[in-house]
Amino acid sequence: MTKVNIGICGLGTVGSGTFNLLRTNVAEIARKTGVDMAVSHVGCRRDHPDCDLSHVKVSRDVFDVVNDPEVHIVCELIGGDDVALELVKQAIGNGKHVVTANKALIAVHGDELFQLANAKGVSIMFEAAIAGGIPIVKALREGLAGNQVHWVAGIINGTSNFILSEMESAGNRGFEEVLKQAQELGYAEADPTFDVEGIDAAHKLTILSSLAFGVPLNFAAMYTEGISEITVEDIGYADELGFKIKHLGITRKVQGSKADDVAGVELRVHPTLVPKAQMLSQVSGVMNAVMVGSDAAGATMYYGAGAGAGPTASSVVGDLIDLSRVMSKDSTATHLVQNLGFVPDAMQALPIIDITETVSCFYLRLKVHDDSGVLARITTVLSEHGIGIDSMIQKDATSGRALIALVTDSVVERNVDEAVLKLQSMDVVDGDIARIRVEMF
Amino acid sequence: MTKVNIGICGLGTVGSGTFNLLRTNVAEIARKTGVDMAVSHVGCRRDHPDCDLSHVKVSRDVFDVVNDPEVHIVCELIGGDDVALELVKQAIGNGKHVVTANKALIAVHGDELFQLANAKGVSIMFEAAIAGGIPIVKALREGLAGNQVHWVAGIINGTSNFILSEMESAGNRGFEEVLKQAQELGYAEADPTFDVEGIDAAHKLTILSSLAFGVPLNFAAMYTEGISEITVEDIGYADELGFKIKHLGITRKVQGSKADDVAGVELRVHPTLVPKAQMLSQVSGVMNAVMVGSDAAGATMYYGAGAGAGPTASSVVGDLIDLSRVMSKDSTATHLVQNLGFVPDAMQALPIIDITETVSCFYLRLKVHDDSGVLARITTVLSEHGIGIDSMIQKDATSGRALIALVTDSVVERNVDEAVLKLQSMDVVDGDIARIRVEMF
Repeated sequence: MTKVNIGICGLGTVGSGTFNLLRTNVAEIARKTGVDMAVSHVGCRRDHPDCDLSHVKVSRDVFDVVNDPEVHIVCELIGGDDVALELVKQAIGNGKHVVTANKALIAVHGDELFQLANAKGVSIMFEAAIAGGIPIVKALREGLAGNQVHWVAGIINGTSNFILSEMESAGNRGFEEVLKQAQELGYAEADPTFDVEGIDAAHKLTILSSLAFGVPLNFAAMYTEGISEITVEDIGYADELGFKIKHLGITRKVQGSKADDVAGVELRVHPTLVPKAQMLSQVSGVMNAVMVGSDAAGATMYYGAGAGAGPTASSVVGDLIDLSRVMSKDSTATHLVQNLGFVPDAMQALPIIDITETVSCFYLRLKVHDDSGVLARITTVLSEHGIGIDSMIQKDATSGRALIALVTDSVVERNVDEAVLKLQSMDVVDGDIARIRVEMF
Repeated sequence: MTKVNIGICGLGTVGSGTFNLLRTNVAEIARKTGVDMAVSHVGCRRDHPDCDLSHVKVSRDVFDVVNDPEVHIVCELIGGDDVALELVKQAIGNGKHVVTANKALIAVHGDELFQLANAKGVSIMFEAAIAGGIPIVKALREGLAGNQVHWVAGIINGTSNFILSEMESAGNRGFEEVLKQAQELGYAEADPTFDVEGIDAAHKLTILSSLAFGVPLNFAAMYTEGISEITVEDIGYADELGFKIKHLGITRKVQGSKADDVAGVELRVHPTLVPKAQMLSQVSGVMNAVMVGSDAAGATMYYGAGAGAGPTASSVVGDLIDLSRVMSKDSTATHLVQNLGFVPDAMQALPIIDITETVSCFYLRLKVHDDSGVLARITTVLSEHGIGIDSMIQKDATSGRALIALVTDSVVERNVDEAVLKLQSMDVVDGDIARIRVEMF
């Protein structure tokens, strides 16, 4: 039986989960691969209470793992992009395959790392970097590879989805209050910025976009908006209009004016109204889901836990199994599937479409003076900017004010920006206008 | 660029879809594989109006394709298991890889075919055989390979799901009426038996069970029940109780009395009440979804179109891409992943648990005389058989009758059978008792 030695760098939640999963399922994995896969070396600053390290080499310096000639595959489970970057580079330099759960590393340094890995004939696998236990990287690179992907839309940050779900379900609790609960439950970090401001989702969407379209990783061009401005009131109005508010990552290939012409790629992370009848709106709590729209398969969706020791370890070990299945067949073969699913020469840098040029529907909510003629003035402004109204609710508010919440027809974002500026300046409009994008997949 | 020649046998819906997808996306596929993949030979009794066959070899005898030395991979897209079986055997005999969309062939003859293929060092791929465009075979064999799977539950027959969805939504239309509509829309065959009586789902579940647990294919042991007995009334009562009725295929590994002991595998296809809060209940119309419960990833779900030219072709071409990625790297390598995801020697024949020994909750609906004391007599019978009641609704019916619909606690099916027999014999019970299994995943 071929023996495959795994080196694990980092023994936090994901590292310990991976260590234990490989141990628990060693027989099941051998049944599936014909390979004896075992952790031979762990690099960690301190031991983990859940891991029995007694029969394995342990180093306090993670670089010892990377330099261990007996290690075939290095699992980079440290996170961050300083030590991790150096570690992965050195592993590649030493001719070792790398499996990582590190979305920031791939989203920001992926193109460079893939080039290094290709030159060395080793693989970098990163199923665990996106949507935890959901094998979405595999679906895009392999299962759907016969398709041209049109768009990908995903709930890819469990913290944000938990907060929005709680705000939706529980009695009138706002963002700050629910965030606190999420922190107590361990669903949100002490500094929650990465999750609630959309940066974590932006890292993941960067990678999904490249997998979908074969474009270079372009985290810097991402439009990123978090959920901290979403109110319970807007969740309620959206509900009345037939929608739920979800934090989505959306990437879409936009056709140009001519048939085969591609105008560019949308790359955006923001709160979004999704019709209640659609599957994505049903994904609640910390769960993740990624929907892919493609020419042959149509819309397919992949749903599961987006984080946690078990789900993330499932994806790390899935990658290890992929690699070991190749290694057991032929020691000269390297990876079969390109890192991003496309041959390096076939990668194509497409323009990233500016958010103001994207086309979608919009939810607008504004408080106005409850006078006759006000609604006509509002709709006139919208109409002057080419904005049609799909549905609307109007409610009496306190002290002579009315509340208007509406969903527009499809329109280019720039027009909405201009209309909102104009509306905001009107004397009959009170306070800030809420504006949230609406998507129907 | 490596050239891979595809032979297509059968030019019906799936064959023509595959032919056209390979042609439309030839450039995209080359971007992803670095391989020039083209259909070189089509075997079909007659041309297809949607396919331009002018630049391809066409034979009226499908065996000419199998015997064409230039063909590397044979796509068996004929269906059925007489000619198709012979064709696949001959393709294997000629050392060619096979891609098929034929669930009946794999479910019934898979073990024999895999053995022949292994002996010859060729692959049989069958992603398209289950759930159309959803890459669920890949998810089980590869993405989730690090897990021990506990159960798989799927809506894997679009026709049945369409009929149930329509019965649920539209004004009081019964099974026969909606079936007619499905036939007019092309969602059901003229003879709908295979779909509505669960045989098609049973074929697919047979394969899913083997992929999940590494057990031999065992179509003969399947418990199969269709949807033809489901009434609009029961759909309504289920709704009031908080459930939708879905036609599910369920396979589950059942623990024995000792820790590591496996009692066997459940293998059953039947209508099932699913809580409305669960994702599976949200899958409507002709869509399919497969949910997998496993030790590390937890519950993950895969959703998409279960049939049609595009989705099925997407899976056929996905398999072709997998094979060509192997072929382009090394001409001696064959498949990397075992046919059922397990090493042949590691397959394990587990007992199939008889349906009467399975444990689940049950929906019971009965019409009784509206007399005092009747409910007490009913619940006493249930209690005598160890059956607790989780929830119940009672309604007045016509002419001195009352309608009782209830959901039981978890109980072994045998007990329910006996209780229903007893209840059915009581003079206060009118007509047939409806009994539908309930599952909460």
